[in-house]
Amino acid sequence: MIEESFYTQHSPFGAFASFTVGLVDSPGGFGHALRGAARQNIYVGFRAVANEEWQLLPFLSPPTSQETAFTGDTTTAQPPRGFRALRPTDYDRKLHWASDTWRADDARFGFSLLSPFGEVPDVEKLSRKAARFHFAPQVSGWIEYDNRKGAQPVELIFGVGNGNDTLRPLTDTSDSLLGFASGGAFGYATLPARGVTMRQGFDVLAPKYADYRGLLVIAGESALVFTVPAGQRKRFPLSLGFYSAGVITTGLPTTYAYTRYFKSLEDVLSYGLADHGQYVKLAAERDKELANSGLDVDQQFLIAQSTHSYLGASQLLWSNGAPLWVVNEGEYRMINTFDLTVDHLFFELAWHPWTIRNALDLFVERYSYRDQLGLSFTHDMGVNNFFTPVGHSSYECDEIDGCFSHMTMEQLLNWVLCAVTYAEHTGDRKWLVARKKILLACAESLHRRDDPKPGLRDGILKHDSSRCGKGSEITTYDSLDVSLGQARNNLYLAVKTLAGWVLLEKAFLKLGAKAAAQDAHATADLLAKTLSTKFEANTGFFPAVFEKDNRSRILPAVEGFVYPLFLGYTDAIDRSGRFSVLFGQLQQHITQALQPGICLDSGSGGWKMSSTSTNTWFSKIALAQHVIRRLFPEAMNEAARSADRVHANWQRLPGCGVDAMCDQIRSDSGITCGSRYYPRGVTSFLWLSE
Amino acid sequence: MIEESFYTQHSPFGAFASFTVGLVDSPGGFGHALRGAARQNIYVGFRAVANEEWQLLPFLSPPTSQETAFTGDTTTAQPPRGFRALRPTDYDRKLHWASDTWRADDARFGFSLLSPFGEVPDVEKLSRKAARFHFAPQVSGWIEYDNRKGAQPVELIFGVGNGNDTLRPLTDTSDSLLGFASGGAFGYATLPARGVTMRQGFDVLAPKYADYRGLLVIAGESALVFTVPAGQRKRFPLSLGFYSAGVITTGLPTTYAYTRYFKSLEDVLSYGLADHGQYVKLAAERDKELANSGLDVDQQFLIAQSTHSYLGASQLLWSNGAPLWVVNEGEYRMINTFDLTVDHLFFELAWHPWTIRNALDLFVERYSYRDQLGLSFTHDMGVNNFFTPVGHSSYECDEIDGCFSHMTMEQLLNWVLCAVTYAEHTGDRKWLVARKKILLACAESLHRRDDPKPGLRDGILKHDSSRCGKGSEITTYDSLDVSLGQARNNLYLAVKTLAGWVLLEKAFLKLGAKAAAQDAHATADLLAKTLSTKFEANTGFFPAVFEKDNRSRILPAVEGFVYPLFLGYTDAIDRSGRFSVLFGQLQQHITQALQPGICLDSGSGGWKMSSTSTNTWFSKIALAQHVIRRLFPEAMNEAARSADRVHANWQRLPGCGVDAMCDQIRSDSGITCGSRYYPRGVTSFLWLSE
Repeated sequence: MIEESFYTQHSPFGAFASFTVGLVDSPGGFGHALRGAARQNIYVGFRAVANEEWQLLPFLSPPTSQETAFTGDTTTAQPPRGFRALRPTDYDRKLHWASDTWRADDARFGFSLLSPFGEVPDVEKLSRKAARFHFAPQVSGWIEYDNRKGAQPVELIFGVGNGNDTLRPLTDTSDSLLGFASGGAFGYATLPARGVTMRQGFDVLAPKYADYRGLLVIAGESALVFTVPAGQRKRFPLSLGFYSAGVITTGLPTTYAYTRYFKSLEDVLSYGLADHGQYVKLAAERDKELANSGLDVDQQFLIAQSTHSYLGASQLLWSNGAPLWVVNEGEYRMINTFDLTVDHLFFELAWHPWTIRNALDLFVERYSYRDQLGLSFTHDMGVNNFFTPVGHSSYECDEIDGCFSHMTMEQLLNWVLCAVTYAEHTGDRKWLVARKKILLACAESLHRRDDPKPGLRDGILKHDSSRCGKGSEITTYDSLDVSLGQARNNLYLAVKTLAGWVLLEKAFLKLGAKAAAQDAHATADLLAKTLSTKFEANTGFFPAVFEKDNRSRILPAVEGFVYPLFLGYTDAIDRSGRFSVLFGQLQQHITQALQPGICLDSGSGGWKMSSTSTNTWFSKIALAQHVIRRLFPEAMNEAARSADRVHANWQRLPGCGVDAMCDQIRSDSGITCGSRYYPRGVTSFLWLSE
Repeated sequence: MIEESFYTQHSPFGAFASFTVGLVDSPGGFGHALRGAARQNIYVGFRAVANEEWQLLPFLSPPTSQETAFTGDTTTAQPPRGFRALRPTDYDRKLHWASDTWRADDARFGFSLLSPFGEVPDVEKLSRKAARFHFAPQVSGWIEYDNRKGAQPVELIFGVGNGNDTLRPLTDTSDSLLGFASGGAFGYATLPARGVTMRQGFDVLAPKYADYRGLLVIAGESALVFTVPAGQRKRFPLSLGFYSAGVITTGLPTTYAYTRYFKSLEDVLSYGLADHGQYVKLAAERDKELANSGLDVDQQFLIAQSTHSYLGASQLLWSNGAPLWVVNEGEYRMINTFDLTVDHLFFELAWHPWTIRNALDLFVERYSYRDQLGLSFTHDMGVNNFFTPVGHSSYECDEIDGCFSHMTMEQLLNWVLCAVTYAEHTGDRKWLVARKKILLACAESLHRRDDPKPGLRDGILKHDSSRCGKGSEITTYDSLDVSLGQARNNLYLAVKTLAGWVLLEKAFLKLGAKAAAQDAHATADLLAKTLSTKFEANTGFFPAVFEKDNRSRILPAVEGFVYPLFLGYTDAIDRSGRFSVLFGQLQQHITQALQPGICLDSGSGGWKMSSTSTNTWFSKIALAQHVIRRLFPEAMNEAARSADRVHANWQRLPGCGVDAMCDQIRSDSGITCGSRYYPRGVTSFLWLSE
């Protein structure tokens, strides 16, 4: 048994906000647009009233009192004490798909945070009532104690110590809420009820001073205290809300969509409590789905933790009278990083496919460009709520190789793959027709990046964008070693290109563009044939890069097949079909790669994206696992299979848990080395379709 | 020579915002509504281009690079280096009334931050043009190098490293600004000019990556770099701006007044640069006034540092179509703490007397109450941009003695003293007439707090407010020892009450309320007589509290006389006039108190408010000094006089300098023990009238 200690983001849909707790002995709390957990002390726990000591979940660091700043007297003030921070062995924590529940004191005490999510219809067709339900920027929660066998009253506490800042009592601005708020930006509340009181003081566990309403509003610690009489079991609802009014982005001014439906934080909290039951029900539905999925507990945990961080990065904005969808790139906070969009695709198609279309349209309208070879799209749309100028990302720099270079080919493929997958999966023919010209331009651009002269083409990218200057293009795997970082003559990108042509053929057929469809078909065949020539018969591997005697072995060799697989294009994934030679080679490649010392870490047993790098990415492991289990099941040996536990434990321990879901991980140590607080892990959602 | 190291707040008028730098080896920068300095690394300095090493002012802590978060590679990334942080002996810093200038390299290098202030006419009568000038939420600055004798170009840098957060280039949203901004909230800019370039990177001193405009906008460090060719002297203007849109307070919703005149941060920065010359001129006027005041350098420093922190706490809001004036209470951020308002009175009457009237009106309309004895006013109007409910402060608690109790009598006197001083000084008869009823109610309330039964009155407060419950009232000197903290039978408050009656008599005469005027006159005489009976003939001192054999000796015994002194009420301050007996006793009291071991600290020599407490307050020292030098000049012995240097050095060294102007200071160590980042020191403005 490991001792679990990890943050989880508890987040509403589209608010780029999280209430983050869970790392042992660490503060957290309300954070908006942050790159990691906030730093508030969270007081959650219980005590028998007769026994003064509080038993608190370990969501705090030792608090300090600000009383001396006022009294000038260091002898009288003392930090909150009279509590014991529970140890992981004292409580049981269960993270489900849409809930995170802690139980202690023989399960009599319970605390739960819910992140219910579901199908969100197209925002432009939503009733006001439905919009309020889906977009309320709040997290539901509850706290309870089963005192039915108790002989004395028990108190429960939920509070926030904001240290350097003070909260305000909601009772001053609302008759129907008990709780506290930080200005109009965030706050927590419950409904007025018998046995519920508010507290605020320098030491919230033992407040010394009380004003006319029993509080001390200049003090930084606040709490709700709930009394459960002997003989009763009581559960109290909580709403944890966020609100950001007005224009919140620059470059392209936008507001939060939810500000159209909620006028203030108080409105949000009141709504959250009024509709508490609906949110509980929705969370329970999701929890049940995942629990009944047949996936093992490690897989379930990974899906749950990933989904929580995805929701924390989601941001539904409003711009010029229309919705604008953003997923922020975790700790980097880049806006709609396209190589993440393509990975979020499967999750979003299940719950809110219109967000894919929305992002694709903005890529066309604002974040596309033409270089010497034709059309492509930027890596992202900006960073940290700042939309970069038309045709430019925040990330891509000139004249370099490696990290921070351009991803022209990668993003061109991402537009094609997202667009066709979206249109095929949803049947949105109208949109596909409207984007026909773009798809044709993408095909032409793909061809010219192979070679401007048709006669020299073999299907594989060989020409870098002129935007690179003397540098060269990279792929989304920028921070791995050269085996995945370089775009030109890259195995991963070549297979992804093959998928692009397969999808383009289908789209062109739908659009009645027969010649283009035939061309796509022929190009796919040519590319498959070229790829097969790169196979090393002597080793049974593909090289990762078809240059410079590269001998790295990579798992993303098969990543591209996820698209035809997802869309059920049986002709393209039939192992005895048109790509049978290539499939046979990939089968051999993957089977050999999934061995300790190659693409299984020889120490930890975790999956490695590349045999020559210890930097591995969970989101891509999940994708590869899905493709391999579906298309190359024979490669799944026992060692490969048992790695689920390894991958889950990386996230359950502080090496990753310190930043909620982490994507880039050292396969030898399990410690994150980038992509923290990250949404991309929702590729694991694909496992539910296996 | 001490090695100076102190923060100074550089602040626009009314924006509750500061650009804070100056503490050696410490970050600072842009802060809005903070209780201390921000934590940005500020890059300011120069280098000979041929010599790669930058010479930077010590406004930073060792920066870290965020490059590894992207590359996953700890071996290639490195923090900004290639610079030397100048030592205090390497540069000369001069803080003037409205400027703060650093010079180095034999004064060839110069950097200056300006906080120009001047007479601000009533905002409701201001033209839009004048309003933009007075309320622009920006700090002007400049950076220069005199390279006339140089043989090679020199580069200058001004930059901000925002670590965890990224700034955006202003060139993306403006054609006329070079610089960077944090969303729409703050930023810095200069005008486009030959030799001025922008930089952004993980290491801003040696950026490795450049996008199409030469920047890397995902990186947290940004700067402007200016080239001064050999043979030239060049000075470049800077504007450091703030902007907070929308409703920024709760309880009573308000917006910043400046948002009526400026539409965005870019608008503010453009204006600041366009009117740069006017701001430079205004700052120079103020600097000249103080320099020519005849005050010694220590006094000038104290006035300058105090004024800077006062401006940082000032906040001009707009509520229901009218201005709402706030001074925030430094680190405590309480709104319009009334016992600070009464101390800011003299400064505000000189520069913007309408702000006094504005605050007094809000105290009447929203922050007054009646207890069992009559009318009074709350201690403050809220905290941390949260306006407390009608009739209640954020500070005052019930059922206690000492800190956090009610200040009913103190605030009642403060309304009387502010109101009459405002009306008399400005001649605003119309307002005085409108407030006649309130003044009469104040007089009645004062009487009843002496004793509800007229026959038992002796002029001194003897009855605590019922709001205290079983506790007792305190004074503004809450955190000193009991000698000043207790309100009942308190020497400081009794003399202040005497001043109250003296001012009330004048006001009632102006209002034609003859009976009330006569009553006020008689009460003042009665009170003076009672006070004289408290004098200890054997020791030659007054006790601080007329209870429990108190033997503390306090300087605020004479504080109350500042009001008749300021208003030139010669009858009340004539030492051979109606209060001659009392004056003689106070003369003896003060002369004996200003001795080492009593109210001069026996170690440091600094002034102590009370003989029995080492907690002393600069703002009140300044008030006492003014009254003593004007009314009791014989008491100013050499030891008392030479303490100016002690008081100034407390602020010049990190013991106070770590929080800009500090008010509560340990007289033995010179280290602050409360009231940091504090506006109240502007009582020292009175020295200019000596």
